[in-house]
Amino acid sequence: MKKVCLVLGAGAGIGGTVGKRFAREGYHTVLCRRSDEDGLKRLVVEIKDTGGSATGRIINAADEGSIEELVADVEANIGPIEVVLFNLGAQIGNRALGDTSYKVFELGWRLATFALFRIASCVFPLMEARGTGTLLVTSATAAVRGNAGQHSHAAAMGGRRMLCQTLNAEFASKGIHVAHVLIDGAVDAPDTLGKMLGPENFAKLREAKGSEHDGLLVPEHMAETYFHLAQQHRSAWTHELDLRAYSDLAWFNHAPKLV
Amino acid sequence: MKKVCLVLGAGAGIGGTVGKRFAREGYHTVLCRRSDEDGLKRLVVEIKDTGGSATGRIINAADEGSIEELVADVEANIGPIEVVLFNLGAQIGNRALGDTSYKVFELGWRLATFALFRIASCVFPLMEARGTGTLLVTSATAAVRGNAGQHSHAAAMGGRRMLCQTLNAEFASKGIHVAHVLIDGAVDAPDTLGKMLGPENFAKLREAKGSEHDGLLVPEHMAETYFHLAQQHRSAWTHELDLRAYSDLAWFNHAPKLV
Amino acid sequence: MKKVCLVLGAGAGIGGTVGKRFAREGYHTVLCRRSDEDGLKRLVVEIKDTGGSATGRIINAADEGSIEELVADVEANIGPIEVVLFNLGAQIGNRALGDTSYKVFELGWRLATFALFRIASCVFPLMEARGTGTLLVTSATAAVRGNAGQHSHAAAMGGRRMLCQTLNAEFASKGIHVAHVLIDGAVDAPDTLGKMLGPENFAKLREAKGSEHDGLLVPEHMAETYFHLAQQHRSAWTHELDLRAYSDLAWFNHAPKLV
Amino acid sequence: MKKVCLVLGAGAGIGGTVGKRFAREGYHTVLCRRSDEDGLKRLVVEIKDTGGSATGRIINAADEGSIEELVADVEANIGPIEVVLFNLGAQIGNRALGDTSYKVFELGWRLATFALFRIASCVFPLMEARGTGTLLVTSATAAVRGNAGQHSHAAAMGGRRMLCQTLNAEFASKGIHVAHVLIDGAVDAPDTLGKMLGPENFAKLREAKGSEHDGLLVPEHMAETYFHLAQQHRSAWTHELDLRAYSDLAWFNHAPKLV
Repeated sequence: MKKVCLVLGAGAGIGGTVGKRFAREGYHTVLCRRSDEDGLKRLVVEIKDTGGSATGRIINAADEGSIEELVADVEANIGPIEVVLFNLGAQIGNRALGDTSYKVFELGWRLATFALFRIASCVFPLMEARGTGTLLVTSATAAVRGNAGQHSHAAAMGGRRMLCQTLNAEFASKGIHVAHVLIDGAVDAPDTLGKMLGPENFAKLREAKGSEHDGLLVPEHMAETYFHLAQQHRSAWTHELDLRAYSDLAWFNHAPKLV
Repeated sequence: MKKVCLVLGAGAGIGGTVGKRFAREGYHTVLCRRSDEDGLKRLVVEIKDTGGSATGRIINAADEGSIEELVADVEANIGPIEVVLFNLGAQIGNRALGDTSYKVFELGWRLATFALFRIASCVFPLMEARGTGTLLVTSATAAVRGNAGQHSHAAAMGGRRMLCQTLNAEFASKGIHVAHVLIDGAVDAPDTLGKMLGPENFAKLREAKGSEHDGLLVPEHMAETYFHLAQQHRSAWTHELDLRAYSDLAWFNHAPKLV
Repeated sequence: MKKVCLVLGAGAGIGGTVGKRFAREGYHTVLCRRSDEDGLKRLVVEIKDTGGSATGRIINAADEGSIEELVADVEANIGPIEVVLFNLGAQIGNRALGDTSYKVFELGWRLATFALFRIASCVFPLMEARGTGTLLVTSATAAVRGNAGQHSHAAAMGGRRMLCQTLNAEFASKGIHVAHVLIDGAVDAPDTLGKMLGPENFAKLREAKGSEHDGLLVPEHMAETYFHLAQQHRSAWTHELDLRAYSDLAWFNHAPKLV
Repeated sequence: MKKVCLVLGAGAGIGGTVGKRFAREGYHTVLCRRSDEDGLKRLVVEIKDTGGSATGRIINAADEGSIEELVADVEANIGPIEVVLFNLGAQIGNRALGDTSYKVFELGWRLATFALFRIASCVFPLMEARGTGTLLVTSATAAVRGNAGQHSHAAAMGGRRMLCQTLNAEFASKGIHVAHVLIDGAVDAPDTLGKMLGPENFAKLREAKGSEHDGLLVPEHMAETYFHLAQQHRSAWTHELDLRAYSDLAWFNHAPKLV
C-alpha cells in the first residue's frame, strides 16, 4: 500500500496543485471536494497521465460523519494517511455585521474550525500509533487580524490558528508535524477567487497582477513550500510561515503615510 | 429610564463584581447567569442594599433565542443598554484531544464565540442608532496562544478575539467601543476557578497565592480597569489590554533557563 | 519629601499633559525635555498656579551621564521617584533606506531604546529596595510592525518593546509595574506632530480630524489612562495596551477590500 | 564571475552549514567570522574538497567600516552578492539587569541590529539595481518576547525583527526577498551553545537531547529550509517562519497546568 496524501478542499487552486505535487513524489493522493465532479475527474486524470496515482471523492465536509467515514475508508482501502492537507476555505467576501446571518457565521465555523478538529480527531490517533504524520493547514490573514466585514471568516480562522497551536503542543513530540500556512494575498485560483470575483473581474485582476507580473500567489510555486514543509526533518520543523507575492504589502503594512 | 449595564456571565467573580462596580456609578445592572439562582439573588440584593439598582436573570446563553429575547426585553422594559460585559467562559480544564468530544468542542464555540456574535448582532444596531455604546469582552490567554489540552477553549477564544477585531473595525467609527480584556492568570473566583479545582484545592491555592499575597487576580481590583475602559473618551480608546497579578509571569514568559 | 513623578520627554503633548495629571494628584512632577526652556517654564508655572508642585529640567537624554545624574539629583534633593514616564520619541518621519544615515539610525536607538535601559538601570534598584514603583512607557505602532521608511524608528521601538518585556519579567514580582502604552495614531501635539508636519499642515489636520471630531488622540484624555495604569492594584496589572481615536483603523486593519 | 552567498557569522553551526549548502549548489560562498581562523580554514577546505568554491574572511562586524569594505571587496573581486545570510548572534546567556553593563547592552545592538542595518544599506542598492537578491536573517525567540535576563539580547533582536519588516516593506516589490528565520530552541552548535555551556554541559545536553533523539536543532537539517527560502519563486515568498525541534514546546507554550 502506498503512503497517502489526503487533500480536503481539492479545487483547481492550492488544493489540487499541492495534491499533484505530492503525487509526483510517489504519494497516492486522495482529492476531496464538495462539488464539480468534472473538475475533480480532470485532476485525477491529469495525475494519472503523468504517472501518478490518485483518487477523487465528492464529499461535503460539513455533513455529519463525512470526514470520519472518509478517513476510515482511505485507511482501510487505500493506505496509511501520511500527509493531510486541510485546505477548506470559508471566505465569503466582505459582509457587514447586519448582512451576516447566524447560519453563515455557523457554517464558517463548521468548515474552517470544526472540520479541522474532526480530521485531527480521526487521523491523529493513527499517526500517533505510527509515530509519524504531517498536517498542513492552509490559513489566511484573517487568522491573525480581524478586518471589517470578516466577522464569520476571521472568527473561524482565528479558531483554526489556535487549534493548530493546541494540536502542535500536544502532538509534535509524538512525531506529528502541524504546519499553519498563512496565505497573505490573492491566489491565482479560478475556483475560489475566480468565483468570488466573477469571470470578468477575475480576468482583469489576472491581467493586472497575474502570471506575467507574479503579483498573484501562484499555486504551482506555493506547492513547493507545502512540499518542503512535509519534508522537513523532525529536528527542525516549521509550525508557522507566511506566503505572499513579492509585490504585495504584508497584512501588517500599509502604504507609507506620515503617521 | 436608567442606562443599563448588561452582564452575561454574572457569577461571583468578574461578572458580578464588575456589575456591582457599574451599579455603584448609577447604571441599572442586569445580571445574567445560567444557574445558581440563590447566588444571583444575593448579588442583586447586595447591589440594592448599597443604593444601587439591579435585575437578575437566569438564562442559558447557549439556547436559541435566549440572548435575543433578553436584549429585546431589557430595551423595552428596563432601559437602553449602554454597556455590555460579555463574560461567558468556556474553560473546561485541560483535556487531551482524545478526551475532547465533538459536543464539548462545539459547546465551547457556542458559548465563547457564537454567543458574542449573537449579542453584538442584537445590540450593535441599537447602539449604532444611539451613536454610543461599549462592549467589554473578558478573554483569556487561550485567545492568543493554544496550549496542550486547550483544543476547545483556545479555538473558541481565538475566534472570540478575531471577532472583537472585526467588530471594532466596523463599529468603532460609529461610536461603539469594543474592548478585549485578556485575563492572563488565575482569578480569585469561587464560581469558576473554585469549581474547577474543587473546594480543597481552591482553598490551598488561595492560601498560597491569594488575597494576602495578591497572587491571584482579584475581581474587585479588576473591576476598576473594566470601569475605566467604559469611561475612556472616544479620542483615546483601548481595544486590547492584559491583566495579571504582579507575581505571575506573562503568558509569553517562562522561568529563565539558558536557551 | 513628596513622591515624585519623573517625566522624560515633557513637551506640550503626552509628556507635559500626563505630568500635569500626576501633579494634580499630589505628585511632585519633574519635567525634563531637551529644548524650549520657555515652554518648559510655562508648564511648571501652570502646574504651580493650580496648586501643584513641579520642577523643570533641560537635559539631553542622549548625553552620557545625563539621565544618571538627573536620577541621583532628584532622589537626593526632591524625593523618591515613584513613577517614571518614559516619553522620549524617535519618530523622524518616513525615510527610505538610502536616506537613513548610520548616525540617524544610531540616534534613534540611543533615544528610544538605550535611554530606557539607562533609566531602568538607575531607578529600578531604588524602586526594588522600596518594593514599589511604576514605569510608564509611551510606545508606538512601530514597536509591533515595521512599515516602509521606518527603519530607524521601528528598529528602536521594537527594541523598546522587548526591553519592556524583559524588565517586566524580572521586576514585576519585585513590585515594579512596567506598562507599555502603544499609541496607535496621530496625537494632537504641537511639539511633535506639529513640528513634523509644519504649522500649515498641522492646522489642516486639526481642522479635519481634531478636537471637535475627536479624530486625533487628545493628550488630556490619554492622561486618564496613563494615570489609571499607575493606580492599578498589584493583583491586576496591565503590561500592554493600545490607545487610538475611535475614528481610526487599528494598525492591523485596512480599509476593507475583497481579499 | 560566480554568484556569491555571503555569510556573516560563519561558525561551525548554522552559518558554516548553510554556507556549505549554498556552495553545494554552485554559489561561491564567502564565510566571515570574528575569530578562530583555523576553524574558518577547515570550513573553506571542506567546501573545496567537495568541489565547491569558497573564501574565508576574519572580520569584526562591530568595527567601523568592516562590513562596508567587505561588501565592496567581494563585489569587486569575487562576484555579485546574490544571497546574504546574516547570522550574527548576540546571546550572552541570562543576566539580571544589575549585571548588564551599558557596554554589553550597546554591543548587543551593534551586532544584532546595527550590523544588519549596515549590510542592508550596502548591499540593497546593488541588489535593487540587479532586480534580485535574498537576505536570510537568523533570529531568535528573543525577537518576539522578552524574557527575564535577556535585556540586551531581546532589545537587540526585537530591533532586528522590526528592521526585517521595514526592509521587506520597502524592498520586496523591488525583487529583494527578506526572510526572518526565528530559531526557537537550542542548536547543536559547538561554537555558540557549546561555548556558552562549556564542554561538559554541552556534552550532557547532546547526550540527553542531541543527534540520536533529534531534540536539538541540527544545522544540516535547518540548512534545507534556509536554502528553500532562497529558492522560493517571487510569487510566493515567505517573510517569517519558525524552526524548532519536534520535541520542544514552542516559545508560547508551557507545560500544561490547570490555569
